[in-house]
Amino acid sequence: MSSSSSSAPPRALKIGIIGFGPFAQFLVETMLKQGHSIRATSRSDYSEQCARLGIPFIRDMHEFLQSDNEVILLCTSILSLSEVVKSIPFQCLKQPTLFADVLSVKEYPRDVLQQALPPDSDLLCTHPMFGPESGKNGWKGLTFMYEKVRIRNEAICSSFLQIFSSEGCRMLEMTCEEHDKLAARSQFLTHTIGRVLAEMHIEPTPIDTKGFEKLFQVKESTVKDSFDLFSGLFTHNRFARQQLKNFEIAFENVKQKLLNRMNE
Amino acid sequence: MSSSSSSAPPRALKIGIIGFGPFAQFLVETMLKQGHSIRATSRSDYSEQCARLGIPFIRDMHEFLQSDNEVILLCTSILSLSEVVKSIPFQCLKQPTLFADVLSVKEYPRDVLQQALPPDSDLLCTHPMFGPESGKNGWKGLTFMYEKVRIRNEAICSSFLQIFSSEGCRMLEMTCEEHDKLAARSQFLTHTIGRVLAEMHIEPTPIDTKGFEKLFQVKESTVKDSFDLFSGLFTHNRFARQQLKNFEIAFENVKQKLLNRMNE
Ligand SMILES: NC(=O)c1ccc[n+]([C@@H]2O[C@H](COP(=O)([O-])OP(=O)(O)OC[C@H]3O[C@@H](n4cnc5c(N)ncnc54)[C@H](OP(=O)(O)O)[C@@H]3O)[C@@H](O)[C@H]2O)c1
Ligand SMILES: NC(=O)c1ccc[n+]([C@@H]2O[C@H](COP(=O)([O-])OP(=O)(O)OC[C@H]3O[C@@H](n4cnc5c(N)ncnc54)[C@H](OP(=O)(O)O)[C@@H]3O)[C@@H](O)[C@H]2O)c1
Repeated sequence: MSSSSSSAPPRALKIGIIGFGPFAQFLVETMLKQGHSIRATSRSDYSEQCARLGIPFIRDMHEFLQSDNEVILLCTSILSLSEVVKSIPFQCLKQPTLFADVLSVKEYPRDVLQQALPPDSDLLCTHPMFGPESGKNGWKGLTFMYEKVRIRNEAICSSFLQIFSSEGCRMLEMTCEEHDKLAARSQFLTHTIGRVLAEMHIEPTPIDTKGFEKLFQVKESTVKDSFDLFSGLFTHNRFARQQLKNFEIAFENVKQKLLNRMNE
Repeated sequence: MSSSSSSAPPRALKIGIIGFGPFAQFLVETMLKQGHSIRATSRSDYSEQCARLGIPFIRDMHEFLQSDNEVILLCTSILSLSEVVKSIPFQCLKQPTLFADVLSVKEYPRDVLQQALPPDSDLLCTHPMFGPESGKNGWKGLTFMYEKVRIRNEAICSSFLQIFSSEGCRMLEMTCEEHDKLAARSQFLTHTIGRVLAEMHIEPTPIDTKGFEKLFQVKESTVKDSFDLFSGLFTHNRFARQQLKNFEIAFENVKQKLLNRMNE
């Protein structure tokens, strides 16, 4: 699709954000720079932060839905998605709307939203494979995964994708299922190891090897994300449990090899 | 000590190397560049490799010991050290000699060598905290740990240390005990995680996060070292076993937190 080429500047969109936590705030910075019109709602009160950014914070969900959004972007935690979606009074929507989400698991929001959305709303499931830490110096070369689950208004969808492609993201179209399989083996495993290292309270030593420095960085960036996020990666990705088992089995094998070798 | 300052070029030493495996070959490259005179012996036959480097490979241990070495550098595997030391006919030494080792554990070679060396030999225990991978673009800024266990000939010892300081290594004097405590928490833990990841056959995915890329690098560089090396880190560092336990406990805690959260 030529309209989503990475060089074209994205057309200004009216984007409503549900869930104004750390990741939403990180995304909004770039969206505002690009000239989009943003408004936000969230469980907690972010009116001060929004005032500082010069965007409206709309506490009331009815009012938020009626505020003429072309895109509604779900940035809530994985664990709260179902509850948050239940609380959305979809009948207040004034027009067919593109719903998009950025949850770090993908089959789950796809299913929840396909069930809950009005039939005339579009659905784009996405996962930016980066965060406030890895994306702090720009998004160039960072991966943006998406699946067009149900798109009729291609123009709006493509303008939304251009938010990321125009920053140089590597755009990767992939099914939600394929995403969850791969993410369990990579991202979930990484968070698990990061949490184990945090649990061990690892700290730099004067004799760190390059390898240990990398593990320390993994630990540091893992614990910057909420435990809810980690927990969501496990609870709502059906492939995660097997990875946890695989890790346990692999550890047991390595331990046995060490003990066998020692007793040789 | 001004004689070990990092700018002075090291004086040419006659260095005999016992154990001509991957790490010794890596070290020798730099030693030859610096103009030292090297000869080697090993369990396996390295006469071809040595011929290519223009250095003598002396198969016979008696002949090797009589070949006028100022420094004898032990580069054998941790697991074979005691056997190798037992096979050294120390009575063949023609002069008081500096023995140095580069084993990745430190209390163990200190103890073995203190017991075995002739009383007039000096002993320097060292651990270059880098290898063929992390040191492939030079040694600048990489850490070199050492303990002067028993040094009378300060000049030779200091010339030997200059091999590393003159390349820009961060020289760190530390007891063997302190080294082993810290290395169990950093290097051994890193190798353990690298081996577990290898056991799981982790591979890059199209949606790798920066964190996962780091884990993959850790796995790649861990498996480049021999299993003997990893095994030695465990068997001959008395602090390693506790770290393995800590890792297991921390994993169990993280797993329990995930399961508890899921059942909330
Ligand atoms: N952080 C990253 O690097 C990253 C990268 C890619 C994707 N993501 C995804 O982006 C989303 C947001 O991530 P995050 O890092 O900001 O942290 P998070 O802890 O995953 O989510 C925080 C957000 O969830 C909302 N929330 C939590 N519990 C709630 C509840 N019971 N009811 C209503 N809202 C609730 C919070 O609202 P309040 O703040 O109003 O309380 C906040 O907006 C997640 O789905 C995550 O998987 C994150
Ligand atoms: N690789 C690194 O990055 C690194 C960094 C710092 C320190 N070190 C230390 O450097 C030493 C050498 O390491 P490496 O990486 O070369 O691999 P390694 O597997 O730890 O040791 C290989 C060396 O041990 C010798 N060896 C093994 N078993 C033996 C036996 N039964 N009898 C006699 N010799 C035996 C081998 O001799 P042959 O080849 O002749 O069979 C070879 O010279 C180790 O103590 C290691 O801890 C390694």
